[in-house]
Amino acid sequence: MKISQETHTSHISQRFNEELEEIRSQLLEMGGLVEQQVKDAVHSLVEGDTHLASEVKKKDKKVNLLQVEIDEVCTHILARRQPAASDLRLVLAVIRATSDLERIGDEASKIAKATLRLAEEGSSPRGYIEARHLGSHVRQMVQDALNAFARFDTAQALAVLREDDTVDLEYRSATRALITFMMEDPRSISQVMNIMWVLRSLERVGDHASNLAEYVIYLVEGEDVRYTKPEKIEKVVMHQDELEPPQLGQSSEDEGESKE
Amino acid sequence: MKISQETHTSHISQRFNEELEEIRSQLLEMGGLVEQQVKDAVHSLVEGDTHLASEVKKKDKKVNLLQVEIDEVCTHILARRQPAASDLRLVLAVIRATSDLERIGDEASKIAKATLRLAEEGSSPRGYIEARHLGSHVRQMVQDALNAFARFDTAQALAVLREDDTVDLEYRSATRALITFMMEDPRSISQVMNIMWVLRSLERVGDHASNLAEYVIYLVEGEDVRYTKPEKIEKVVMHQDELEPPQLGQSSEDEGESKE
Repeated sequence: MKISQETHTSHISQRFNEELEEIRSQLLEMGGLVEQQVKDAVHSLVEGDTHLASEVKKKDKKVNLLQVEIDEVCTHILARRQPAASDLRLVLAVIRATSDLERIGDEASKIAKATLRLAEEGSSPRGYIEARHLGSHVRQMVQDALNAFARFDTAQALAVLREDDTVDLEYRSATRALITFMMEDPRSISQVMNIMWVLRSLERVGDHASNLAEYVIYLVEGEDVRYTKPEKIEKVVMHQDELEPPQLGQSSEDEGESKE
Repeated sequence: MKISQETHTSHISQRFNEELEEIRSQLLEMGGLVEQQVKDAVHSLVEGDTHLASEVKKKDKKVNLLQVEIDEVCTHILARRQPAASDLRLVLAVIRATSDLERIGDEASKIAKATLRLAEEGSSPRGYIEARHLGSHVRQMVQDALNAFARFDTAQALAVLREDDTVDLEYRSATRALITFMMEDPRSISQVMNIMWVLRSLERVGDHASNLAEYVIYLVEGEDVRYTKPEKIEKVVMHQDELEPPQLGQSSEDEGESKE
């Protein structure tokens, strides 16, 4: 059995359950907004749509605001509810996740700025196909990581971590091609460089999606898998299927943590 | 009066004080290591010292390990001590700060990799002076932000935030110069691009140092100043001098937070 939304209702305080559910759904709302920002930013770049690019830049303020709001709710929960075990992990995972979502939002905003610069300087003769391809790949990673968060699904989280290697390969191959192109057509360097920064931003989005996936595994398994090789993470995740998972909303002291 | 190390000793539980002091000193240890990594990485680049670059890459594992260790101690403190008010803020500030320090470590590692690539491809005809200059600037920001953390010094934190605008200007002027150079000497594009990524990494280090400075202000003032303009932050910091600051190690419910 996976930890699921239903297990929340078993918590002793109904209001506490609601608060935990609230930060989780706020996080997913923020995630949905950020995912749309990446999509719109890449679309604005590929289509040269400066109006959409300006919208993305504007909406980044909303992303930032959401982070501050969610972090505030999390801090209040820590201070007032003093959660333990899996409840504590949920709050910490949400705090870490808002930070990555905010940085994905930043990258989307940087891409939108590249759209606006290219509209002034004249469009790049190369790189849009690569940006669209890498963009749709990392946007899918963000979506999958958020779905994994929504369903406490460690198998999907593991799939996201695996995907990141492919993204890195695609990124390197795209930048190599653009460097070769610039050497052949040096007059276009300034424009192509804008696309180079966009590709870098997209590669970073993939990294942040991977971080989100790691928090899902931390949340469900109680193991910090950052800097752990995928094969080892797989063992952690597979192990889960044989065990009764910790239930959210119990605040049990089942991890040897005792109050003083 | 500023919050200082001495105020810890006023806490009701001597062991709790020691734990808070421990995460603070561990954070500063991690900070010192990361600052040295940035210094060594830039030195390896400028001097073409591949041995030093390999050392930086190796030591990044230690940085990652320190983050996991400190985060674990923080999680235990949250679960067992259930800190409130300024104690809670200290723990949350440390958790956020380890994340930024780890990312600064990542950027140092990326710079070391650029050193190794340039040793293979042949050195870049331009950009080392810019990298050294920007490198020493952002390294100083990291050092100042850590000092601000060590002394709970919001005035120094504010100075770090101001510095970031200068770094952004330097970064933009350096990349513009390199783009112009590449247009004149397209055969060197591949080498110069390595320096372009290094400059980008250094600019990111400046961003992370700013984040650290924001956590110091959050810790001392209890206000989340992310996405706040420096002029407004200044008001928050100046206001502090007229008020009795919250004391660390009190876990008082002085922020309207009540237990249920």
